[in-house]
Amino acid sequence: MIANKPTGEASRVPARAAIAHVLPEIDGGQFPIKRIEGETVEASADVFADGHGVLSAVLRYRREGSPEWLEAPMEEAGNDRWVGRFAVGNPGSYEYTFQAWLDDLKTWRRDLAKRIEAAQDVSVDLEIGAGLIEACGSRASAAGSEYDARRLRQWARAFRSESPLPLLLNQDLWDLALNYPDRRAAATYEKCLRVTVDRRKSRFSSWYEMFPRSWDGEPGRHGTLRDCESALPYIAAMGFDVLYFPPIHPIGLTSRKGKNNQPRSTPDDVGSPWAIGAVEGGHKSVHPELGTIDDFDRFFQRTRECGLEVALDLAYQCSPDHPYVESHPGWFLHRPDGSIQYAENPPKKYEDIYPLDFECQDWQALWQELRSIVFFWIERGVRIFRVDNPHTKPFVFWEWMIHDVKKEYPEVIFLSEAFTRPQVMQRLAKVGFSQSYTYFAWRNTKEELTEYFTELTQTGLVEYFRPSLWPNTPDILTGYLQSGGRPAFISRLVLAATLGASYGIYGPAFELCENRALVPGSEEYLDAEKYQLRKWDLESAGSIKEVVALVNRARHENPALQRNAGLRFHRLDNDQLIAYTKANDDRSNVLLMVVNLDPRYTQSGWVEVPWEEFGIDSRASFPVDDRLTGARYFWSGRRNYVQLDPHAIPAHVFRIKPRP
Amino acid sequence: MIANKPTGEASRVPARAAIAHVLPEIDGGQFPIKRIEGETVEASADVFADGHGVLSAVLRYRREGSPEWLEAPMEEAGNDRWVGRFAVGNPGSYEYTFQAWLDDLKTWRRDLAKRIEAAQDVSVDLEIGAGLIEACGSRASAAGSEYDARRLRQWARAFRSESPLPLLLNQDLWDLALNYPDRRAAATYEKCLRVTVDRRKSRFSSWYEMFPRSWDGEPGRHGTLRDCESALPYIAAMGFDVLYFPPIHPIGLTSRKGKNNQPRSTPDDVGSPWAIGAVEGGHKSVHPELGTIDDFDRFFQRTRECGLEVALDLAYQCSPDHPYVESHPGWFLHRPDGSIQYAENPPKKYEDIYPLDFECQDWQALWQELRSIVFFWIERGVRIFRVDNPHTKPFVFWEWMIHDVKKEYPEVIFLSEAFTRPQVMQRLAKVGFSQSYTYFAWRNTKEELTEYFTELTQTGLVEYFRPSLWPNTPDILTGYLQSGGRPAFISRLVLAATLGASYGIYGPAFELCENRALVPGSEEYLDAEKYQLRKWDLESAGSIKEVVALVNRARHENPALQRNAGLRFHRLDNDQLIAYTKANDDRSNVLLMVVNLDPRYTQSGWVEVPWEEFGIDSRASFPVDDRLTGARYFWSGRRNYVQLDPHAIPAHVFRIKPRP
Repeated sequence: MIANKPTGEASRVPARAAIAHVLPEIDGGQFPIKRIEGETVEASADVFADGHGVLSAVLRYRREGSPEWLEAPMEEAGNDRWVGRFAVGNPGSYEYTFQAWLDDLKTWRRDLAKRIEAAQDVSVDLEIGAGLIEACGSRASAAGSEYDARRLRQWARAFRSESPLPLLLNQDLWDLALNYPDRRAAATYEKCLRVTVDRRKSRFSSWYEMFPRSWDGEPGRHGTLRDCESALPYIAAMGFDVLYFPPIHPIGLTSRKGKNNQPRSTPDDVGSPWAIGAVEGGHKSVHPELGTIDDFDRFFQRTRECGLEVALDLAYQCSPDHPYVESHPGWFLHRPDGSIQYAENPPKKYEDIYPLDFECQDWQALWQELRSIVFFWIERGVRIFRVDNPHTKPFVFWEWMIHDVKKEYPEVIFLSEAFTRPQVMQRLAKVGFSQSYTYFAWRNTKEELTEYFTELTQTGLVEYFRPSLWPNTPDILTGYLQSGGRPAFISRLVLAATLGASYGIYGPAFELCENRALVPGSEEYLDAEKYQLRKWDLESAGSIKEVVALVNRARHENPALQRNAGLRFHRLDNDQLIAYTKANDDRSNVLLMVVNLDPRYTQSGWVEVPWEEFGIDSRASFPVDDRLTGARYFWSGRRNYVQLDPHAIPAHVFRIKPRP
Repeated sequence: MIANKPTGEASRVPARAAIAHVLPEIDGGQFPIKRIEGETVEASADVFADGHGVLSAVLRYRREGSPEWLEAPMEEAGNDRWVGRFAVGNPGSYEYTFQAWLDDLKTWRRDLAKRIEAAQDVSVDLEIGAGLIEACGSRASAAGSEYDARRLRQWARAFRSESPLPLLLNQDLWDLALNYPDRRAAATYEKCLRVTVDRRKSRFSSWYEMFPRSWDGEPGRHGTLRDCESALPYIAAMGFDVLYFPPIHPIGLTSRKGKNNQPRSTPDDVGSPWAIGAVEGGHKSVHPELGTIDDFDRFFQRTRECGLEVALDLAYQCSPDHPYVESHPGWFLHRPDGSIQYAENPPKKYEDIYPLDFECQDWQALWQELRSIVFFWIERGVRIFRVDNPHTKPFVFWEWMIHDVKKEYPEVIFLSEAFTRPQVMQRLAKVGFSQSYTYFAWRNTKEELTEYFTELTQTGLVEYFRPSLWPNTPDILTGYLQSGGRPAFISRLVLAATLGASYGIYGPAFELCENRALVPGSEEYLDAEKYQLRKWDLESAGSIKEVVALVNRARHENPALQRNAGLRFHRLDNDQLIAYTKANDDRSNVLLMVVNLDPRYTQSGWVEVPWEEFGIDSRASFPVDDRLTGARYFWSGRRNYVQLDPHAIPAHVFRIKPRP
C-alpha cells in the first residue's frame, strides 16, 4: 500500500495507526472461521502507530447484510497486541474487522498527569483539554445525544473557569467523553473477515451409520425403510442423535459388483449403493426395494420422534444406468473408443461407477443440477449430508454449492468424507464443510494419539476443522480392531467419543465387534454390507451396546465432552495407558479419561494431573466417579494409581467434582 | 473467493489447483521482501488439487514494469510443499508469483506405467496419449516452434502405427512434450509479491560516525569540512566504508542547549546539530561554521577517493529559527496561547526543537518539501541517509517517500534510527528502510545475545529487517562500556562486527574507549559532543584503532562475515564465553568467533562445534588461524579448549580452512 502522491488540496492525511497480524484469519481472510451459535469469537491484532500517542481500538462485527456494525472494545495485552471478543447469535454468516485511532483525549490525560507530577505550569494544557472536551461535546451533539453534549460543554466551561483539578478525577465525565472520540483519522483494517455460525450439532453429534437394506427379520430379504422404523428405538437407546444411511437411491445393474467386491454379480446380488442410478431414477429417487419417497417421508418423521436426525449420503457419481448418462452424455468423459470413462485408480477399476466430469463443456448445467439434488432432499426435511469422496471434486464447486445452500439454510451440516493428504482435507474444511473425517482410525499408540489430537485441538485448525472420529466405516476395518477384538472395540469407542465432540460408528458391525477381514492385511470387511445383505444378531452376548449407551450418556451429561477445546494430555508412566482431561472454560465440568491401549493385558500405572489447575484441591482426598462402571474412588495428590483389565472394561471415564 | 453462479455458457471452469501459504510473503504481500543484487529468492507454496492428477508448478518473476514473466520450475519437497528459486539482478523492484496446473500428460504417463505393470490392455490409453502429444504439437506450433511441432506430431503418429512402448522410454521426446503443457486451466496466485533489490552495501557496511566540528588541530576552534579532509586517511585506515555525519545544517540560536544539555547556553556554545535551521538556512544548507556547499562537494569527492561514502543525517525537525517556521507556520502545531508546540516527552521538554505536524492541513506540501530535501542531497551525490527518529513520523510518509526516491535512485540506502517497540521497528523496515538500528547495545549476556541474534537471523525478520549493530552512539554509552573499559570496548566491537554484516561505531569516542557518563546510571556521555566541541587525542596509547582495523580487515577478507545468514551458536561450558560460527552456503568460508563477555577476568572453557557439518574432518588435527592475533592453533575433535584474557584481547576470530 503506497500512499498516493499527495496532490489535490482536499485529500485527507492517511491514518497513522497500523492494524496487522490479525488472528483468527484463515489464509489471509480467504475463508471464514467457524463457530456454533452462542460461542465467542476472540480476535486479536497488533495495533500500533508512530509517535507516543495513546491508541484506542475496537473490534467491529455484524451479521452479514446488516447495515450497522456493532463494536466491542479491545484491550492491550502487552507488546502492542490487542484483544477483543464478541458472541455470535443464530446460525448464518457474520463479519468482523477492526478500527484503531490515536486518541487525543487519552494522550492529553496521560501527559497532563506527568506534567502535574513534575509540578509544571499546566494552564495552557488545561485550555487544550477544554478544547478537546468541547469537541467531544460537538460529536455527542452530532450523534443526537443533546444531554451528553450539554454535560460535556458544561465540563469544558468549568475547566476554564473553576479550579479544574477535582474535575479531572471525575471518572463518570471521563467515560462520557471517551464515548465520543475523534475517529476521523481512524485506521480500518482492510479486510472484512467472515464467521460461519452453525447450529450446535455441527460441533457435538453422535452418528450411527447403517445399511437400511440389512434391517429385516428374515435372512435374505431386502430390508425396507418401513422395516427400519423398528431399528429406531434400538439406535436411540444407545444414545445416538444422527442416523446416517449410505445412498438410498436406485442401484445400477450394469457391471454391478457381486459379493465381496467380485467383478461379476449374480441376479440375487444387491450391488453397491454407491453405484447410483437405474431405470427407476437417480439421486432424487428412492431405491424401489427400500420403498417409496412417501416411505422416506414417513421414516424421516419417525426418526424425529425418536430424537434422531437422518443424514443422507451425497455421492456425486453415477452407475452406467443413471438417467444422466442418456440425458446428459456430455457430463461424462468419453474415451477414443466411444466408451464412457469409468472410475479408476490405476490399476484398480470401478466399472460400476462413472465419475462426473466437473470440467466438461456443460459444467454450469452440471453444477446446478448437483446443487438441485441437495435442495431436493432439503425440501424433504434433510439437513445433514455426509459427502462421499469430496476430494475428487473441485474445491471451488464445494465452496459455491455449500455457500449457496447455507445462505438459504444455515442449519445444514456437510460432513466431508475425505481420507487424503492434510492440505486437501484442510482445504475442504475451509471451503465450507461443517465436519471432517480424520486419520483417527489409524492413530493407535499413545504417541500418535497425543500428537494428532494436540494438532487438531491446539493449532489454527480449531478455527475451521471440526473432526469427526470414526473407529470403523464400511470401508475401514483397521488391523487394530481385527486383532484386538472386543477390548479393542471398547477402547476405540471411548477414545472416539471422548477425544472428539463428534464421532460415529458403522453398526451393527461395530457394537457386535465384527472383525473378520476379507483377506489378511486388508481393511475390507469379509462379506461386506457394501455388496450384500447381512443379518445381524443384535441381542448377541458379545454386543457392546450397553457400553455404547453409557459412553453416549456421559457425553450428553457432560458439556466438556461436547466440544473439542479443553483437551489436555497428562503424564502416565505406562505407554499402554493414555490419560487426558476434558474441561469447560469455567472448570465446572472436568473429566479424566484413562484408556488401556493394549487389548490383551491388564495395564497399570500412576497418572499425574495438576489438579489445582482444574480448581481441585488435591491435598485432601476427593472423589472420582467412573461413568462407565459407576465405581467411586477417593484420590489425593497429583499422582494416583490406575489399573485397567481390557477383558473387564479397558477405560475409565471419570467425572471429578470440585468440592463446594 | 466464491465462484460466480455458473450462468452464461461461455464462462470457463474455475482452476482446480490451489496455491496457498506462500513464503516469503510479508503481511499478506503488503510489503516487499529485500535482497541484494545477485542474491537468490527461494519461494515456496502449498500446491495441491482435488483428485489424483499430477501437478506442475512454476515460480514466475520479472523486473517491475517488464511486460514478460520469466519462469523457474518448482519441485515438490514433500507433503504438497513446492519450492522454486530465481536470482535477482541490478537494484530495483522485482515481482514474483506462482502458477500451477494439472498436467494431463504427466498424469497419463504415470497411470500408463501402472496399467502396463498390471498387464492391462492399454490400446485405448495409447490412443489417448497420442491425442495428448498431438495437442502438445499444436501448442508448439502456436508458440512458433515448427520444428518441435513436427517432432511431436511424428511421435504421435508413431504411437498409433508402431509398437509404442520403446517410444515411451525416449526421455528427449518426453522433455520436449512437457515443454508445451496445456495451461488453459492453470491457477495463478492472486497476489503479485514484490522484492526490493538493493546494492551490496545495504547488507554489508562498516560505519564510522563523527562530529565534523570536533575535527581540528586547535582546542576550542570549530572544525570545518576542510579540516575533516585530514580525518579521512585515519578513518579509512581503520577499514570503514561509510562516514556518517550528524546534521551539518545551520543550528538554531533560540533555546539553544548549553554544554551537557543545560537548558541555557552561553554565547560560545555550539548547540545541538539536531536543532536544525537558522537565519542562514535549513535542511538544504550547510552550517556556515562547517563551510560552504562547495566545501561539502569537495569533501564528498575526497571521501570517495579514500574508498569512503558519506552518509547524511535526515532529521525532520526544526529549530525555532528554521526558515520554515516563518514561511510555513501551518506546518507546526500551535498552542492556545499562540506559541508553537516544542518537542517533548512529558515531563521532558526539548525547547530547541519544533516537531513538524505531519497531519497538518497543508500536509501534502509539507511531505513534498521533505522529500525534496532528500533529492537535494542526492543531486549532490549523497546515496546514504541515516534517518533520525523515524518512529515519530507516519509510516505512510516513509513508505511514500522512500518508494519515490528508490524508484529513481534504487541505490539509495536509508538507515532507520528507531529504538522503540519491536512492532514499530519492524514496520519501519517493512515500509522501506534498508537497514535498522537494533537492541544490540543492550544485549550483553550469552543468553540475551543468543536469543536476539537467533531471532534476527532465523525468523521471518531475515526477509526484510537488516540489522545495523552499534555498540555506542552519541546518545548511548551503555553501563557495560562505562564499567568494563577497554576490554568491554573490544569485545563489543568484535560482537557487533561479526554478529552483523552491518555495524558502526561513534568515534573517536569509541576507539578511545571514552566511558565517562554524565551521571551514574545515565547513558549520556559526560561533555557530550552533541552539545560541545571535543578535542580527541587520536594517538593515545589506550586507542583500540589497531584492533578495529584488524576486525574490519577480517570482515573484508571473509565473505561469511558480509551477510547475516549462516550464523550458528555453539556450546561452550562457560557462560562468560560465547561461541558462534559464520559460514557461507558452500562452506568455502568458515569462521569461529569466541568472545569473553567478562571484561575483568580471564575465562576458559571447551567449545564444541560439529565440524563435520562445515565440511571439516576433525578426526585429524586441523589448523585454526586467529585473524586478530595471527596465532595458529591445531585442533582436533569436536571439543577444543579456549582461554581469553580480557586485558590481552578478549576475543578470537578464527578462520578454519577445510583440508583440500
